[in-house]
Amino acid sequence: MHPENDPRYKGLTVNKGIAQPPSVNPYLVRVKRKRTLTSGEYVEGILKGDISILGQAVTLVESTLPEHYALSQEVIEKCLPYASRSSRIGITGVPGAGKSTFIEALGMHLVNKGSKLAVLAIDPSSERSKGSILGDKTRMEELSVSDKAFIRPSPSAGSLGGVARKTRETVVLCEAAGFDKIIIETVGVGQSETAVHSMVDFFLLIQLAGTGDELQGIKRGIMEMADGIIINKAEGANLEKAKLAQCQFQNALHLFPAHESGWVPKVLTCSAFHKIGIEEVWQMIEEYIAFTRKNGYFNVKRKLQAKYWMYETIDEALRNHFYKNPEIEAQLSDMEIKISNDELSSFIAASKLLDSYFKK
Amino acid sequence: MHPENDPRYKGLTVNKGIAQPPSVNPYLVRVKRKRTLTSGEYVEGILKGDISILGQAVTLVESTLPEHYALSQEVIEKCLPYASRSSRIGITGVPGAGKSTFIEALGMHLVNKGSKLAVLAIDPSSERSKGSILGDKTRMEELSVSDKAFIRPSPSAGSLGGVARKTRETVVLCEAAGFDKIIIETVGVGQSETAVHSMVDFFLLIQLAGTGDELQGIKRGIMEMADGIIINKAEGANLEKAKLAQCQFQNALHLFPAHESGWVPKVLTCSAFHKIGIEEVWQMIEEYIAFTRKNGYFNVKRKLQAKYWMYETIDEALRNHFYKNPEIEAQLSDMEIKISNDELSSFIAASKLLDSYFKK
Repeated sequence: MHPENDPRYKGLTVNKGIAQPPSVNPYLVRVKRKRTLTSGEYVEGILKGDISILGQAVTLVESTLPEHYALSQEVIEKCLPYASRSSRIGITGVPGAGKSTFIEALGMHLVNKGSKLAVLAIDPSSERSKGSILGDKTRMEELSVSDKAFIRPSPSAGSLGGVARKTRETVVLCEAAGFDKIIIETVGVGQSETAVHSMVDFFLLIQLAGTGDELQGIKRGIMEMADGIIINKAEGANLEKAKLAQCQFQNALHLFPAHESGWVPKVLTCSAFHKIGIEEVWQMIEEYIAFTRKNGYFNVKRKLQAKYWMYETIDEALRNHFYKNPEIEAQLSDMEIKISNDELSSFIAASKLLDSYFKK
Repeated sequence: MHPENDPRYKGLTVNKGIAQPPSVNPYLVRVKRKRTLTSGEYVEGILKGDISILGQAVTLVESTLPEHYALSQEVIEKCLPYASRSSRIGITGVPGAGKSTFIEALGMHLVNKGSKLAVLAIDPSSERSKGSILGDKTRMEELSVSDKAFIRPSPSAGSLGGVARKTRETVVLCEAAGFDKIIIETVGVGQSETAVHSMVDFFLLIQLAGTGDELQGIKRGIMEMADGIIINKAEGANLEKAKLAQCQFQNALHLFPAHESGWVPKVLTCSAFHKIGIEEVWQMIEEYIAFTRKNGYFNVKRKLQAKYWMYETIDEALRNHFYKNPEIEAQLSDMEIKISNDELSSFIAASKLLDSYFKK
């Protein structure tokens, strides 16, 4: 349900754009019933760094109403020339790895050094759970009340493509509003890491030290995507295991090809809870950015990403149009059954469906 | 140029379907100017295990002529009920890892135990080089003259999807002809490993021991796809390094999640040249097949693969139709330039192109 229509939100106080009713999900943003601004008014407010207007513009982008879509695209077009002036960091890791605690520690470090930080999330499951397991503000207590930080839970959109688009557009708005550091968090659901990796400059994987026996459970392809790996909870009795895991990961990284960037991924340890090793992590990220700006890869990558999103969006739309076609819907499961039973070749089945579709 | 029209092939002798003119690529198959058989005649010959007719049927599948396409699809439909009675093994590794030597060793082992073996290849670069670096018969001397083996170079098709389709259909024909073991070889070009992995039961990665310093160069995602990893050239002075590499890979595999099959991938060493360790490799593959047949995953995987190829074929056709549309072709590079320069959002660019396309 859209927050504007949600009766639980009538008359709530708004604190930095985050509503705090005790009995409901604290992550849903309350939107006051104010008139919708014009695109010019949104842009003006954003460029001035007005957090409240930025929040409303992001809500506009996340809206599913058709009239909001057209307006949001106008706002984004006008903000585009002012975007791109930031460093974008993606963070992934299994639940329990300590992402929120880490983002709090790194975030406060950046804010104390004078940055303005936006923390976003991509969580495709948020549609179903009506809230996200990411952006856990109870673990980002300091950051969530800092006026130099803007924290937003994952949008819901019904598909990863939709969630990714809204997040990518929110990045544009945040950058236009003067946020020079953007963190995008994700958890290992479906292809969400690929989506985040395709919209950030530096991709960070947060791992825990294992006991040595069990499988670490890193999803296919994630380790090769990472520009840096952090072994978290390197503290106390766990310190030795963390150092061992650091070696294991460094050895494993040797098995993969060189990154296109020319950068050699590093494996560091840290304790996010005790704020140990955070400075070193940030130094690694700064080193990466300096390195890739110098060799030109920084901008090459951003251009590749921009094209990637155009092609991804086209692909998704073509597939949706095909699979939502009533004739295709009617034939599809029958085709699946026949090919599963070797009654029909996959390629002939595809041909028949394509013939139905293109004849229309 | 289609072999039938190639003037270099007039009057050549045919030896097991492989033409051997000294001055040209020995991998191109010569097709005698015989009349095209009816689909019934092809099928009858195939089911009898007639290698010559099988070879002609495969050439038909590989043909780019439209009239051959319809006929080939008839042949495949009729062969389908007789297919699926084999074990399919995919083999990948960097050039120089020893794939051909290994296939010769494993192949002769299987043939000597009474199997009929087909060796196919997926090499998307074969279109450009007019021949494949795979299926190197000079390294498969014994196998290439065995009457229990059928070796075929990669088809050319202008796209990976086309090559994959023709190979998958060739598998059907070989199985109907009584070949109970199918090996499909590939080299790390583009997404060819994903294609092979999606049409085999067991996926084998052949690696070399490194010096320890340089990166092994395993492409993203390959290690996690492998059901087994072989460290080749474990011989003489290299034996110790091979054992070390075996450990490194076993440790690295621990970092990944469990396979859906429930199977724990194994890392073995061998010397294909000296035919050491080949029996153990085959035992591992047989163990895998017994394991997955018992827990049902063997057939589950084949059904998933059948559906995968239907969806992949549909996707490719939808993309081709879109990108070959003249209006899209006219606008595409301009859109790319604009989004690269941040003049236009990727999503708006996609919308504009999709609007052009769907209005037609």
